[in-house]
Amino acid sequence: MADQADITAMRRAVALAARGLGATSPNPVVGCVVHDASGHQVGEGWHRQAGGPHAEVHALREAGVLARGGTAYVTLEPCNHTGRTGPCAQALIEAGIARVVYAVGDPNPQATGGADTLRAAGVQVEQGLLADEAETVNIAWLTSVRRGRPFVRWKYAATLDGRIAAADGTSRWISSAESRADVHRLRAEADAVVVGSGTARADDPHLAVRGIDEAVQPLRVVVDTEATAVKPGARVLDDAAPTLIAVAEDVATDLPQAVRLPRAERGLSVPALLDALHERGVRSVLLEGGPTLAGAFLAAGAVDQVVGYLAPVLLGAGPAALQDAGISTIADAFRLDVTETVRIGPDLRITATIKER
Amino acid sequence: MADQADITAMRRAVALAARGLGATSPNPVVGCVVHDASGHQVGEGWHRQAGGPHAEVHALREAGVLARGGTAYVTLEPCNHTGRTGPCAQALIEAGIARVVYAVGDPNPQATGGADTLRAAGVQVEQGLLADEAETVNIAWLTSVRRGRPFVRWKYAATLDGRIAAADGTSRWISSAESRADVHRLRAEADAVVVGSGTARADDPHLAVRGIDEAVQPLRVVVDTEATAVKPGARVLDDAAPTLIAVAEDVATDLPQAVRLPRAERGLSVPALLDALHERGVRSVLLEGGPTLAGAFLAAGAVDQVVGYLAPVLLGAGPAALQDAGISTIADAFRLDVTETVRIGPDLRITATIKER
Repeated sequence: MADQADITAMRRAVALAARGLGATSPNPVVGCVVHDASGHQVGEGWHRQAGGPHAEVHALREAGVLARGGTAYVTLEPCNHTGRTGPCAQALIEAGIARVVYAVGDPNPQATGGADTLRAAGVQVEQGLLADEAETVNIAWLTSVRRGRPFVRWKYAATLDGRIAAADGTSRWISSAESRADVHRLRAEADAVVVGSGTARADDPHLAVRGIDEAVQPLRVVVDTEATAVKPGARVLDDAAPTLIAVAEDVATDLPQAVRLPRAERGLSVPALLDALHERGVRSVLLEGGPTLAGAFLAAGAVDQVVGYLAPVLLGAGPAALQDAGISTIADAFRLDVTETVRIGPDLRITATIKER
Repeated sequence: MADQADITAMRRAVALAARGLGATSPNPVVGCVVHDASGHQVGEGWHRQAGGPHAEVHALREAGVLARGGTAYVTLEPCNHTGRTGPCAQALIEAGIARVVYAVGDPNPQATGGADTLRAAGVQVEQGLLADEAETVNIAWLTSVRRGRPFVRWKYAATLDGRIAAADGTSRWISSAESRADVHRLRAEADAVVVGSGTARADDPHLAVRGIDEAVQPLRVVVDTEATAVKPGARVLDDAAPTLIAVAEDVATDLPQAVRLPRAERGLSVPALLDALHERGVRSVLLEGGPTLAGAFLAAGAVDQVVGYLAPVLLGAGPAALQDAGISTIADAFRLDVTETVRIGPDLRITATIKER
């Protein structure tokens, strides 16, 4: 049974896991804390990057011989397969760990079975402690495994009346400096940042992460169906981060970053785009709009989470945050569950997940 | 100096004052707690309705002779003038109160001066304890005195993308049953509820308070400039509450509830409407929209507070919560301060005040 010390250790493991966000794809984020036989913490670690040691290995190295007879707290079921690193279940057994507490089962068919291996070796195994918190920190990777496509988080910044610019197109600034800095944190957590041709044309955005130490730059993606929005010299084409320009199969372009994809009824095929990103190891996408592209993603059932920065501003005119999501009547509306509401400077950040339809 | 007992007593007085919301106009809401000379509560009261005894009188009656040498905690400076009831400053002196602690000074030139009268009679007087909380509970009345017009609270219910209906006009329901019940509380606190002709035509709203015991029904107001939206038999014309139909001076109408007002560039003159309501004793208005009327009020500088019910819903099409507020560029946007964010069922209620421009 889990006691307060178990909860404290697992909460620490979740916090450690979060440090890997944005750097571990195509792997999950994982945190691990090791206690010795008398319940004192003797090691901790997290998965820092794909190809590097898993969280358990970091924590076991720190613990050394003190791990013998102790407990390992892991946010995700220890893996059972040999990939670029050896299986963690085996490492835990060899270190003499007597008890393994993990939060979330591994949904990846290649990696699952670690718990069985541990049990077969006589290790006491418990699942489910702080499962919700561990699921939340790993939601991008878990969703990508379950759906076979990258997790998509749609971010927008709007006024209280839902507008992203004034009638004359001006929008600097609706949201606060604090909110704009927070968006760079979201970018750093994502494997790819996606905008549409309207945003590319209007803002010439750079899309790289600024102001966050040691951030892994995301893949910058512009959906430019007609290959008319991104011109040589665009800021998104500099060498601050890798870039992909998604264009229709039938258009001409000289951009070396261009990738050709099939068209949909309007614009490019969203599933084809997500497939192409998934093949490149992208497990989490930050969709930064604008309203037309967000509508296309929603209509394609390809938005998992919404992060809205609501600025305490009223305009009464100007473009809305979301357009053309395929909804014409209230019964068909997208319904969401709000999972978090936080003040960011003067603004409000609302995080919500789309309900299954 | 205020100690913890003083704070507790004043907080109780603020809570008592709130019980009068919606029933005291054109008077403020006021709460009062009386302690005896040794600091025990011996009386409390609140102003229940215009023409009835003031809060201090209720509390002093309950305290009786125990008030002698004691302290009175009042949310608003005790009045000094003889209106329909005698001056409270005099009543406190006659009861032998030794110390009066009040939160907010009376801005009403007719009533002010109570503190001076008390001091002249040898009573110890202190101002400012929990002034923010007492100001908040009385914001409608204080604003009406300071601006010479009713306090206007604009309420809207919208999706996360700022829409109040789907593309086909359907809107039942965007916000939750909990939010809709909460709106009845706002109506009960208001002296008048105002909608425009678009809402009257689309919804045939009743606008009375339901589901709140002993609520004083607000004046129901429809701004129907051309006298075309409200027809005999409309629900708003029943006898559940008084009703006023505001029409332009130059239109024909047979409705006995009609009041003629001058036109503005678009629609009716908002200042003229607020003047007409103020003359009828209305000190607080709940503006329930729709988007065109809300835009006209905002453009006229006649909105003091915004209460938005944000439902976790996305539509991508349909009318916006606010239209035509006279803003065409971001530098002219209305900026607000968020004062409260609360979950109401699945929805989010955001309260914000418009910053001075």
